[in-house]
Amino acid sequence: MRRPITRYTDGRREIVDDVLVEESPVEFRLGGVPIAVLMRTPGEDEQLGRGFAITEGIVLGPHEIADVAHTGSENGDRYDLVLADGVTVDPEQFRRNLFTTSSCGVCGKASIDAVRVAARHLPDGPTLDPGIIASLPDAMREGQARFTHSGSIHAAAAFDPEGNLLAIHEDVGRHNAVDKTVGDLSAHGWPLDPTLLMVSGRISFEMVQKAAVAGIPVIAGVSGASTLAADLGDELGMTVIGFLRGSGFNIYSGAERIS
Amino acid sequence: MRRPITRYTDGRREIVDDVLVEESPVEFRLGGVPIAVLMRTPGEDEQLGRGFAITEGIVLGPHEIADVAHTGSENGDRYDLVLADGVTVDPEQFRRNLFTTSSCGVCGKASIDAVRVAARHLPDGPTLDPGIIASLPDAMREGQARFTHSGSIHAAAAFDPEGNLLAIHEDVGRHNAVDKTVGDLSAHGWPLDPTLLMVSGRISFEMVQKAAVAGIPVIAGVSGASTLAADLGDELGMTVIGFLRGSGFNIYSGAERIS
Repeated sequence: MRRPITRYTDGRREIVDDVLVEESPVEFRLGGVPIAVLMRTPGEDEQLGRGFAITEGIVLGPHEIADVAHTGSENGDRYDLVLADGVTVDPEQFRRNLFTTSSCGVCGKASIDAVRVAARHLPDGPTLDPGIIASLPDAMREGQARFTHSGSIHAAAAFDPEGNLLAIHEDVGRHNAVDKTVGDLSAHGWPLDPTLLMVSGRISFEMVQKAAVAGIPVIAGVSGASTLAADLGDELGMTVIGFLRGSGFNIYSGAERIS
Repeated sequence: MRRPITRYTDGRREIVDDVLVEESPVEFRLGGVPIAVLMRTPGEDEQLGRGFAITEGIVLGPHEIADVAHTGSENGDRYDLVLADGVTVDPEQFRRNLFTTSSCGVCGKASIDAVRVAARHLPDGPTLDPGIIASLPDAMREGQARFTHSGSIHAAAAFDPEGNLLAIHEDVGRHNAVDKTVGDLSAHGWPLDPTLLMVSGRISFEMVQKAAVAGIPVIAGVSGASTLAADLGDELGMTVIGFLRGSGFNIYSGAERIS
């Protein structure tokens, strides 16, 4: 979004038009009850809603959501997650178990004991070629240039085991980029085929958790993994790869999937 | 934290000891009721708890918190925010207004309408020298090298209008770094003297909101500001500075404080 700003350079000040990353709130409701307000980059809201509901364990799969219906747009967009016939989720029950978190991370677990949400059983495979893994950052950059707007915000991309790009999304929020990607993938088949998830930033606990709930067995990032992300990868049998740069990378857990 | 990982370089695979950024959950309670679980880098938990309570508007100032008492450490640390005599906060009331968010941002507002929490009235000053502003990134890097552990995670630092470092904290979560810094500052005087807050990443809506609730009139970052951060800066009369690199920077709002 273009906006006039004051640019200060070497003692000179001028008003210029600048392009800012767009950020605005979106509210998702379940049966009319607000269950989440996310600050996101507008666009792909339906995919965001579906992916968020899946990776946060609100629904068990895309078939449980009949529609993501736009219901308002004052001070941000509002959507109702319309459940499929016969599916019931108690929004109060869900809501009461949610918590604020500041930089997020565990976002919304009622207590530390509840941190680990039910993850899907991950497949033993796929077996991955290290050369294909090393090719992912370039493939993601190329995907950002082709399919997305700015290239300057957080990105998440999904690849098949041969390194073919399946989906890519950007967002001002790193977890939103993952949720949009999962929401996108979920529309094309469920459970997901063996998928690699690539993220632009650090791999934190919640990124591993979201991937696990979506049944994704491999996550890779250009930055490192945190201690807890590596621990959770070990516990769940997920392959967690970090510092993916040039022809090298670090494998924090699940090294047996790399041939 | 050291941990064995598999490093893959140019077709060679070896097990090496690597240093991972530490991430683990901390739970804060109010009257025994859990109000927030944050994923954070351990250390400065008391400052984090105080800063979080202040910047999220749970208390009106540091004098309302008598103690941050450590009450447990299974699966993460637990603390009770012990309120000062005569101060009452209904944790259920607070908790019911909180929401999960995925990449955070508005973290926990019950609806979009409630996004803007009560900000303090910001002072008209201080008047800032552009040369001092340009010096902040180097001063922050130097502070990270002197006072913090890794330099590789998110950082927040507070400076006085002459560019002297007042406090600096790092955390795996960007908002936690801000909360730790505010908690630290709040122990040395309240309301805060005119302070500049410098952050290592992007300036999003919630960073501006947290600064505003703490009464901080100037926020600066090495990356850009989002649209909503710039809008909120305008609305609150806060000086929002981004792309602070070399001798140049962008002023998104509150340019009148720059001399």
